[in-house]
Amino acid sequence: MANIDKTIMSDRFEETAEQVVRRMSLCAPDTLDEVRYRRSSIILTHNYQVANIDVDLSVHKRIESSTEHKQELSPISASLDPTDWASTRAEAHKMLDISLDFLEKARDRPVWVPLPTDVRRRLLLEALPEYGKPIADVCQDVVNNVLPYSGGNTHPRFWGWVHGSGTVGGVIAEMMAASMNSNVGLCSHSGVLIERQVIEWMRQLFEFPAETGGGLIVSGTSMAAVICLAVARYHALNQVRRDGLVKLGVQLVAYSSTQTHVCVAKALELLGLGIQALRLVPVDKEYHIDIQALKNMIQEDQQQGLTPFCIVGNAGTVGTGAFDDLDALATIAKENNIWFHVDGAFGSFVILDPKRRHLIAGLSKADSLAFDFHKWLHAPYAAGCVLLREIGMLHGTFSSPRNYLVGTKRGFAADNPWFCEMGIELSRPCRALKVWFNIKEHGIIRLGQSIAANCDQAQYLASLLSKHDFIRVLTPVSLNIVNFRLEPHELNNFDPETIDIFNDEVVNDVQEQGIAIPSTTRLNERLYIRICITNHRSTLADFDLFVNAIIELCQVRVVSMNK
Amino acid sequence: MANIDKTIMSDRFEETAEQVVRRMSLCAPDTLDEVRYRRSSIILTHNYQVANIDVDLSVHKRIESSTEHKQELSPISASLDPTDWASTRAEAHKMLDISLDFLEKARDRPVWVPLPTDVRRRLLLEALPEYGKPIADVCQDVVNNVLPYSGGNTHPRFWGWVHGSGTVGGVIAEMMAASMNSNVGLCSHSGVLIERQVIEWMRQLFEFPAETGGGLIVSGTSMAAVICLAVARYHALNQVRRDGLVKLGVQLVAYSSTQTHVCVAKALELLGLGIQALRLVPVDKEYHIDIQALKNMIQEDQQQGLTPFCIVGNAGTVGTGAFDDLDALATIAKENNIWFHVDGAFGSFVILDPKRRHLIAGLSKADSLAFDFHKWLHAPYAAGCVLLREIGMLHGTFSSPRNYLVGTKRGFAADNPWFCEMGIELSRPCRALKVWFNIKEHGIIRLGQSIAANCDQAQYLASLLSKHDFIRVLTPVSLNIVNFRLEPHELNNFDPETIDIFNDEVVNDVQEQGIAIPSTTRLNERLYIRICITNHRSTLADFDLFVNAIIELCQVRVVSMNK
Repeated sequence: MANIDKTIMSDRFEETAEQVVRRMSLCAPDTLDEVRYRRSSIILTHNYQVANIDVDLSVHKRIESSTEHKQELSPISASLDPTDWASTRAEAHKMLDISLDFLEKARDRPVWVPLPTDVRRRLLLEALPEYGKPIADVCQDVVNNVLPYSGGNTHPRFWGWVHGSGTVGGVIAEMMAASMNSNVGLCSHSGVLIERQVIEWMRQLFEFPAETGGGLIVSGTSMAAVICLAVARYHALNQVRRDGLVKLGVQLVAYSSTQTHVCVAKALELLGLGIQALRLVPVDKEYHIDIQALKNMIQEDQQQGLTPFCIVGNAGTVGTGAFDDLDALATIAKENNIWFHVDGAFGSFVILDPKRRHLIAGLSKADSLAFDFHKWLHAPYAAGCVLLREIGMLHGTFSSPRNYLVGTKRGFAADNPWFCEMGIELSRPCRALKVWFNIKEHGIIRLGQSIAANCDQAQYLASLLSKHDFIRVLTPVSLNIVNFRLEPHELNNFDPETIDIFNDEVVNDVQEQGIAIPSTTRLNERLYIRICITNHRSTLADFDLFVNAIIELCQVRVVSMNK
Repeated sequence: MANIDKTIMSDRFEETAEQVVRRMSLCAPDTLDEVRYRRSSIILTHNYQVANIDVDLSVHKRIESSTEHKQELSPISASLDPTDWASTRAEAHKMLDISLDFLEKARDRPVWVPLPTDVRRRLLLEALPEYGKPIADVCQDVVNNVLPYSGGNTHPRFWGWVHGSGTVGGVIAEMMAASMNSNVGLCSHSGVLIERQVIEWMRQLFEFPAETGGGLIVSGTSMAAVICLAVARYHALNQVRRDGLVKLGVQLVAYSSTQTHVCVAKALELLGLGIQALRLVPVDKEYHIDIQALKNMIQEDQQQGLTPFCIVGNAGTVGTGAFDDLDALATIAKENNIWFHVDGAFGSFVILDPKRRHLIAGLSKADSLAFDFHKWLHAPYAAGCVLLREIGMLHGTFSSPRNYLVGTKRGFAADNPWFCEMGIELSRPCRALKVWFNIKEHGIIRLGQSIAANCDQAQYLASLLSKHDFIRVLTPVSLNIVNFRLEPHELNNFDPETIDIFNDEVVNDVQEQGIAIPSTTRLNERLYIRICITNHRSTLADFDLFVNAIIELCQVRVVSMNK
């Protein structure tokens, strides 16, 4: 047995020598022979349990105490674990209570608080920390400077863009996922199975084929669109992986309505097809894709030597919540041997609402479907999903086995195929656990009722707004989105652009007062205030409160304009 | 004031009427006039505080109790919040303790436990839950079936691939991020500022230009490679977003060593350039890119009418931890007006280790850098980073303002530019908080010492292995990776392929016994056992234990082979 003398230096002057040894995990405490403490230097003697260690330990040579408080800890220890687990544990529990209070009392705070200048400075101008500080201090930073200025979408009156509102189960699941810290990109462990289970549930729910269907959990529908359109491109040109687009020289074109989410255009750009590859098909008065126009466009493009490769259908447009006729789109796609992708970011989950599931008739005929768990299923950000009719297409598009990434039949590297071979990411977080948790805790019937309630609330809101003759409500309100515009009689003589700005300012007013978060959009070339209800905390009373407030703020602004 | 009679049905027969009202957030309890409870039906009368509500409430019509336990709750409530916060809170605290025990006692369990058949069945074959169950039951599912079968990389003897090991601070940060649930893709809130701060810290650390430098936090280096190579493509062809590659007809080619990570090839495929666009440059004996060979290849390609657009340098190859001569690569890139990207997935953080930071000399001249926080900085999965010399290039490559995504000067939609305009994702989780937390808690000096310790441990491991004449250790061991191969004398007459398989089986043995997780790789056409030490929990004693175990398992297998 070799005796090794080591001297290390602690920068924490209050620590005892034993504490330093434990903090730095220098050795198992029971192998420790002697620890002496001298100023800030610690000399320890420790018996390694293995004989004849002749590793060069010169790097761990004695470092004399320095009065400049400069850290030169011996690199023998790598540990970032707490030295004092008990106090760290207490701190973590304190933070958990604050975290749960934040959700339980969501209603008691303003929806949003503009970041004060001093907080902004504190968050943006901190020097890169050279030395650490106690975990309690970092927690306090979070409590003081981060938590009060969150995005606000946990509040019952957040209705901007399409945000989910989170759940307590989601918090627990993320906490557990962070402690397990599994990399779901590869190998054999529970995180991989949880993801497979969630995908299988989605396959069943959306009635994709049992034999060949499958998918992947990703960070959201934007990423899902990239993946699905990459698969569609591979479906059209399976040499694209080797040769690239230029060598193949085929001009691919995709079709989607003018109401389609920007992620589709961005995906086409990323894939090297260019925005010119996206044919925007006109919509009818209710914002559904014009089927006949689509047919004509495909025919014209084919005649001009272009290669139609993908039709993107909308299951819930971001502007008005409109559903394209997915059944008709599936038929056209099949007739033309074109990939049929559905963007169902939030709308696809109307499948859980018996009164509205007819809206997605035909969805199960899609080749691929993209949707989010962090919107209407309220999993914490971020989790979305790709579903495919033929899961093999994901492997075809993305698999790239390499020397250091070989799956095995047994051992840790088993459980092929690995998810990293089915998408862009190699290391992958366990996004599935929070989804799995929410579905198991609430069940799909309850989740569907929550969605149905949001749709009913949209009708309720529309009915409230419609009582006022100076509020123009865009009809029909078919799902969970209400677009409206304030047109006070006092502004009758103003041009539409001024009224656009007026509406925008009222939205800013209602946001800055912390009352509610609506967003805005442009429809028929005019700015509308947009309320998108994907919020399980909203009640009818929240809409009463909102309508009263916005009318009041509208009047205040009218008065101030007239002055 | 209107009185509205509502009848709803609870599927939880044990609940009182008041509990149901609270659970479903039907109305603020203080507005409740009367609640009556009859079998499983509840009749409540409730005064809305707003006059003249004439919304159609027929949807909330009385639903009689059903004996089939079929849920038909009135969709008036959307709430997924707990009805009983106190018991839920207790459950969450219980889970937090389990989560912290998991980290504190990481050493006490096997590194990995193969998933038992019954657990596998339980995880994979559960029917899609129609009805929910108490949160305590879901938590118990996690404790029984998920936690014991995690990926194992929190354990001190996990050294497979390149995994981070997580921190307690990371768990707290993820818990807080999940409760805030901010969408960091857009708008004005603390999550956006935290991400900006972490990027600014990285800009300072890697000495990118203060005036123009910036970046984006993504899910990891694979995604960062896609983003950086998309920017490089846009740099070469800024019409690519509109026209696509085919119309432009330019054959772009990129250069990187044979040791480059697969994510680069995959990114080129995704971008439509094809794997043929990647020129693999040979390496010297120490696995560095051959600079002269690169120069020759660029010249030849230019002569053949191809367009070199990107050089990818390695800061820590995945196989052996080799660093390309980044300074020389920067010079070549500049001379040829080619984008210079550096893949520094884990290796770039040697910048924190004064003894090794010379390895990345020249990195600050890169146009883009990709690296991970979830590897050597131990943030929980997943968080990686893109750094750019010219942040405007990210906007140029990805921005796509649309009607419903318009930033404002004040209100919630302020704080432009939004991150969603700088990458692929629109909704984005707050990946920065866990990084911010780890950096603040530990400081970069301590984090650097942890990295240095891992490198010293690699030298220690190599010295242990080298004592045995039947173990071939691949030299030099320059960073944190040790590749070695068991070549027992008893197998001298076997062909190399059999010895490959022998090594693979010993790796499986050591994994299945829960002793350690090494991975394998192929170098010089032979299979090597690969130990990559990015683990802050490892101590020297862990390597002693591992070497003893693997020698023993090797001998057991030799004996069984000879039988």
